[in-house]
Amino acid sequence: MRNDNLYNIRHSLSHMLAIAVKKKYPHAKLAIGPVIDTGFYYDFDFSGGEAPADKDLKDLQKQMKKSASSNLDFKKEELDEKEARAFFKNEPYKLELIDEFAKAGEKITVYKTGDFTDLCEGPHVANTKEINTDAFELSHIAGAYWRGDEKNKMLTRIYGLAFENKEALDVYKKFREEAAKRDHRKIGKELGLFTFSDLVGPGLPLFTPKGTIIRDVIAEKIRSIQIRFGYERVWIPHIAKKELYQTSGHWDKFRDDLFHVKGKGDAEFVMKPMNCPHHTQIYASAQRSYKDLPVRFMEVTTNYRDEQPGELLGLSRVRSLTQDDGHVFCAIGQVETEAKNIVTVIREFYTSLGMFEKDSYWVSLSVRDPKLPEKYLGDAKNWDTAEHMLEKVAKEEKLPYKRIEGEAAFYGPKLDFMFKDAIGREWQLATIQIDFNMPARFGLEYNDKDGKKKTPVMIHRAVAGSIERFLSVIIEHFAGNFPVWLAPVQAIIIPISEAHLSYAQSVHEQLKISGARAMLDESNETLGKKIRNAKLQKIPYLLVVGDKEKASLAVTVESRDGGSLGQMPIEKFIQMISLEK
Amino acid sequence: MRNDNLYNIRHSLSHMLAIAVKKKYPHAKLAIGPVIDTGFYYDFDFSGGEAPADKDLKDLQKQMKKSASSNLDFKKEELDEKEARAFFKNEPYKLELIDEFAKAGEKITVYKTGDFTDLCEGPHVANTKEINTDAFELSHIAGAYWRGDEKNKMLTRIYGLAFENKEALDVYKKFREEAAKRDHRKIGKELGLFTFSDLVGPGLPLFTPKGTIIRDVIAEKIRSIQIRFGYERVWIPHIAKKELYQTSGHWDKFRDDLFHVKGKGDAEFVMKPMNCPHHTQIYASAQRSYKDLPVRFMEVTTNYRDEQPGELLGLSRVRSLTQDDGHVFCAIGQVETEAKNIVTVIREFYTSLGMFEKDSYWVSLSVRDPKLPEKYLGDAKNWDTAEHMLEKVAKEEKLPYKRIEGEAAFYGPKLDFMFKDAIGREWQLATIQIDFNMPARFGLEYNDKDGKKKTPVMIHRAVAGSIERFLSVIIEHFAGNFPVWLAPVQAIIIPISEAHLSYAQSVHEQLKISGARAMLDESNETLGKKIRNAKLQKIPYLLVVGDKEKASLAVTVESRDGGSLGQMPIEKFIQMISLEK
Repeated sequence: MRNDNLYNIRHSLSHMLAIAVKKKYPHAKLAIGPVIDTGFYYDFDFSGGEAPADKDLKDLQKQMKKSASSNLDFKKEELDEKEARAFFKNEPYKLELIDEFAKAGEKITVYKTGDFTDLCEGPHVANTKEINTDAFELSHIAGAYWRGDEKNKMLTRIYGLAFENKEALDVYKKFREEAAKRDHRKIGKELGLFTFSDLVGPGLPLFTPKGTIIRDVIAEKIRSIQIRFGYERVWIPHIAKKELYQTSGHWDKFRDDLFHVKGKGDAEFVMKPMNCPHHTQIYASAQRSYKDLPVRFMEVTTNYRDEQPGELLGLSRVRSLTQDDGHVFCAIGQVETEAKNIVTVIREFYTSLGMFEKDSYWVSLSVRDPKLPEKYLGDAKNWDTAEHMLEKVAKEEKLPYKRIEGEAAFYGPKLDFMFKDAIGREWQLATIQIDFNMPARFGLEYNDKDGKKKTPVMIHRAVAGSIERFLSVIIEHFAGNFPVWLAPVQAIIIPISEAHLSYAQSVHEQLKISGARAMLDESNETLGKKIRNAKLQKIPYLLVVGDKEKASLAVTVESRDGGSLGQMPIEKFIQMISLEK
Repeated sequence: MRNDNLYNIRHSLSHMLAIAVKKKYPHAKLAIGPVIDTGFYYDFDFSGGEAPADKDLKDLQKQMKKSASSNLDFKKEELDEKEARAFFKNEPYKLELIDEFAKAGEKITVYKTGDFTDLCEGPHVANTKEINTDAFELSHIAGAYWRGDEKNKMLTRIYGLAFENKEALDVYKKFREEAAKRDHRKIGKELGLFTFSDLVGPGLPLFTPKGTIIRDVIAEKIRSIQIRFGYERVWIPHIAKKELYQTSGHWDKFRDDLFHVKGKGDAEFVMKPMNCPHHTQIYASAQRSYKDLPVRFMEVTTNYRDEQPGELLGLSRVRSLTQDDGHVFCAIGQVETEAKNIVTVIREFYTSLGMFEKDSYWVSLSVRDPKLPEKYLGDAKNWDTAEHMLEKVAKEEKLPYKRIEGEAAFYGPKLDFMFKDAIGREWQLATIQIDFNMPARFGLEYNDKDGKKKTPVMIHRAVAGSIERFLSVIIEHFAGNFPVWLAPVQAIIIPISEAHLSYAQSVHEQLKISGARAMLDESNETLGKKIRNAKLQKIPYLLVVGDKEKASLAVTVESRDGGSLGQMPIEKFIQMISLEK
């Protein structure tokens, strides 16, 4: 937060960095040096001279510590435009900023530290002695466009970490190290789950057989739970005329984030960025009576959004998002039961991942801002009912929920599920959203008991959300050690030597017939190497077979999570693994 | 065929039609009157006067019969350009044709019949007495653009049927009537399988829960068979950079039939018109050894092609084609086994539909034209091997095949499977295609035993082909009476009166738990009406329950295909239906 102690220290450190850089690289031009969540950075233009590399960060850091230890004051001064221009005449980026301040009629302030002066509105520490020199370090260098615009010049950004004290810095460095080990892009590559192709394009992952198993198993798990609650699969194409989104209202808001499709004719199509408008058209394809409600559609289908190339990141941010989507069309009185059923689906799904534990998730009940009733569309009485029902469900289902006023969408209240991963990061994954707006926009109707035509309420729900983003979260959460039911390979059979290959093959066959996802290591590697490889692949069960096992139709089982389980008959292993699926 | 007897009769009938039209509608301008598969048509411009409607066809037909019975001669004459222009000075369409003939230096001929003269190159019957006046009739009127170009004027096209004799005409009319009854657009609507939305766009069907069940059951049937042969599912996005298709070679040939995708950036994407190029990129994502081959990918995924609006037709011709696709990457020596396995998949799948019967299918073995070796890409020795292997498989699998020279694709030989539907139409559905070209274009490799890098052969295979087109074929083949394993609703429970509703519900629950797709009729209709409705829905089993059934925990079963099966315990019915799934 601005103006708190840590903010001032981080901000002051960015000036110390500029001092150190200017000392060693006098040709460097200064851009900007703001505070970020984990410390600070400063952007420099080193063109026309030497630029630092990662190896030079230590020296710069040493210099920063030296000047921080010199008890320098930070002094604020106000300059008029002319003075500022004169002072920064050799700093083109500062001049550009001065232009803007002047144009906006803003005050121009500088901070002086020793003989260094920076254009800056503050705030800073009063004196560098407030800076704990053990609690910061320079972390890395990256390129960054001036003002984030790729049409501008690429500058050099030097990042620093800075925390309250050395312990906090160490905790963060440890966290970062752990996060790097778990990076889903790294693990995805090691386990061979997905790939990108330059010919296909950025943000468009392709899934290998192993990655596809995980996708399919997740989708099937969700389907198998929600089919009990009357959900039926539908199928929609991936494009639609822009008129569909003009009707839904998405066109006006999101037109620039859509992929536009043109053929040789005049028709203009759009790649669907979401599924609800299409699903309304299936609802609208038949006469509906109150007896038919709720109508519940589910579909696992891919949406496309034109994310900026610079924002794409592994599976976390893609252009092709596959949603495990679901929509319920119902009467307002049915919202409670439907929401309750969806909570059950979410609970069962996340329980199977071990993620629905006390303190590992919480729920945001997002309701209207009572002070701004005009912000929300739809009948106030229906809003009252739906908010009340969602809160009742949250209570009855004993969800750890917080009621957050003003967080509702303009079209209805919602329940958002936030999950903590293994290293403490929080992710919004599942959601239940009430919608009073879209059914009316599409003129959806049902014939009610009283003979009158009424507009149904729509419920949007996601369990995993985007499968790609969900995968990025759980790959990192499990560090690739997927639960048995989710593991692309559940067991690998490792023959001790070539002499045991045919027995290993028969074990493999039996496992496959039982429905287990088993693999056979037919390589010519040593036993030690084969076991190491299987462990690197994070396979839940290693089944070693040699003379002893062959003689007694058994396998010797090494569990990834439970260590050595000794020798057991094949059937016993099959029974054991089938309980975990 | 041109110049055969029937051709001449049909062609002459189009002139008789023009005579009849000119007599009744003297203001009509003549366009063209060609022969078609089932008879003939003539295009007229009636603007500026009265135009005939379907109800007027009888009169016109009567007039045609009358003049055909007048033993008129057809006499050919040659005119020079000037004579022709003078003669047809009031026929603007004929003048346009004369322009073209003159420009191309072609001879201008006319045919005279009585006092009617038409610009025409023939041939015709010598005399109208050759025309069997019982073997033709005018069938319908439609609009058609002059020269098929939508920028031109819309003309009135009058269609006529004409055959060798009355029997052949009646057979064809019967066939057409049967085809109309089976029209998949009509049945799809009656059974509520799919829908189109003006907001989504033409050629883009949306599938309801019932239609989606059929799609999913077909895909799952194919998957469940081919998983035995080592196929693994993969997943690819629906777009790619155009560079992917420039590399595959599709860009040059099909660029105009593709949907082009643009976002806000510079990247130009294309909606995938097929899956093979993407699948090569998954193959290329890992090092492959000869030990890893064959690599077999399968995926049910939707392709997009920019079909002209005028060519779109229900599910037969759509813009969104979902393929049950499969690709095998293997060594040339493995082609035989792989092709054999695919034949097994095709046999099992079509056997389950009752379509793999003697005389209900045949196979085209498409090989090179030996006279044009330069037409084909790839090593001639590999071609010899692959053609030989495909023929060997066809023989060993006892396929009724014809070897057709010159029908191979430029990239490899293939086996195409042709199936006859219930009313005798033939459809090319399954295919096995060898490809010597694409792996090389993408630089695919594997490390062979001898340590050398080699290029794999690719096999494209389809079992159902496009699911949408396949659905249009089988909906018409079965006239909506799907086999039990494919029926979206397999059984409906019909309580005799409201008093039996709760027993009916318990039967419904038991069936659902058993995995049967069962429905409960909870309407307030009479028993008779409920049974009629169920029959209209073509549901394989109607289970009527009343006091008697309730007392003995039984159902009274009426089979769609087998008539009344009497009363039986619920478990017995469940057992019976589970054998049909």
